Amino acid sequence: MSLQEDLASTRANSVRGTIRGVGLGPGDPELMSVRADRLLRSARHVAYFRKAGRAGQARRIVEGMLPEGVVEIAMEYPVTTEIPLDDPRYNGILSAFYAECTARLKALSDAGHDVLVLAEGDPFFYGSFMHLHTRLTGLVPLEIVPAITGMSAAWAATGAPITWGDDILSTLMGTLPEEMLAQQMRNADALVIMKIGRNIEKVRRALRRAGRYEDAWLVEYAAMPNQTVQRLAEAEGRVTPYFSIVIVHGQGRRP
Amino acid sequence: MSLQEDLASTRANSVRGTIRGVGLGPGDPELMSVRADRLLRSARHVAYFRKAGRAGQARRIVEGMLPEGVVEIAMEYPVTTEIPLDDPRYNGILSAFYAECTARLKALSDAGHDVLVLAEGDPFFYGSFMHLHTRLTGLVPLEIVPAITGMSAAWAATGAPITWGDDILSTLMGTLPEEMLAQQMRNADALVIMKIGRNIEKVRRALRRAGRYEDAWLVEYAAMPNQTVQRLAEAEGRVTPYFSIVIVHGQGRRP
Repeated sequence: MSLQEDLASTRANSVRGTIRGVGLGPGDPELMSVRADRLLRSARHVAYFRKAGRAGQARRIVEGMLPEGVVEIAMEYPVTTEIPLDDPRYNGILSAFYAECTARLKALSDAGHDVLVLAEGDPFFYGSFMHLHTRLTGLVPLEIVPAITGMSAAWAATGAPITWGDDILSTLMGTLPEEMLAQQMRNADALVIMKIGRNIEKVRRALRRAGRYEDAWLVEYAAMPNQTVQRLAEAEGRVTPYFSIVIVHGQGRRP
Repeated sequence: MSLQEDLASTRANSVRGTIRGVGLGPGDPELMSVRADRLLRSARHVAYFRKAGRAGQARRIVEGMLPEGVVEIAMEYPVTTEIPLDDPRYNGILSAFYAECTARLKALSDAGHDVLVLAEGDPFFYGSFMHLHTRLTGLVPLEIVPAITGMSAAWAATGAPITWGDDILSTLMGTLPEEMLAQQMRNADALVIMKIGRNIEKVRRALRRAGRYEDAWLVEYAAMPNQTVQRLAEAEGRVTPYFSIVIVHGQGRRP
């Protein structure tokens, strides 16, 4: 880049706003990072996903933190669980939605506004912000504020370490096929299984096949006021939320 | 428990101090949790591990945050890398050291003092505090403050999400045998490899065998002022610290 181009680019950047994917952590506002806390308390524009007609979990976490006069951009999902993942319309509808959100955020950046996009957990770990990040890359200045993951809050809630020494940790989604889950569960020392909800019976079967069922813990609402922790085997028949987390602790090398 | 025993136990608990394992996150003080920040700024007793004669990375992270008059308990490792892991003396020496640290912390708790034990990263994720936690369980009131892991800072540094949709994430230690590494690398979508240092050539070979070498990134000193990010393939021959992290991003389902 020539000096002239460099100066021009600096000028252009100096008027464009930065879009920040801000991880909120597992849900307890005290488990937010100092940086996230500082950014939120001085925010001018805040965007977040939510289901139409709902307050939205991300927005709920920051309740009472946003300054007066903040502009809120609610990005409402057109579909979530109503259409199955394998329906060809699913990808098309969501893709158009993300494109529209991207256009709104880009317009704000072009007008010189910084925007905080709220992300539950860590923004780059199975998060929705990633779908905007990948579309905004190269178009606007971007920043990521990493955060405590829901799984860290879940293993903290069990009161026992997740991994020791050279334990292998496998992070699995309950949406995977049972056979694949069972195989992974056999080949790792420590396990985190997320996206449980209606997948719970499949997850139980896979854990049994892998011989890990008796060592599994179910954590609901980690780091939230209604947190529960119990052995999975003692929660037979329980209806559990999508964001529950199943934990199997590693038992690795330790002096 | 009888009512009398219950009351006696309540009285005993009310005078015993709480030992808190406080995760400091990846190294940038702004990436500490609000809770960790608050606890540290009002601390009376702070304990941390370090190598004899060194300041210690955990202590360095909190520099300037501790109040005047805080009591510092430096727990100095008797051995770290001087004795190989498979030497039978290694476990014995470390075990005696952890027992001694446990006794010091228990004595402080018994005397009514709360103690913050500093933990780099997240205390329950491959951390040293776990060796004290397991020994203190049942003896003193314990609490865990989860934190942002070094791996979250590492994937944030790469500027790309680590996992999408139902990607399988495998977290591996560079200390594992090459064959085991290669097998895990083939069977997961996204990879985090920690404890690199002198294991880097073995990690390279395992990634090559698994066909993942060209997609691997090397992050040194994530979230610290001297952070570097580069493709692993472009860092051939590089001497890299033990706490470097190798990242291979998942490419999973996305609309």
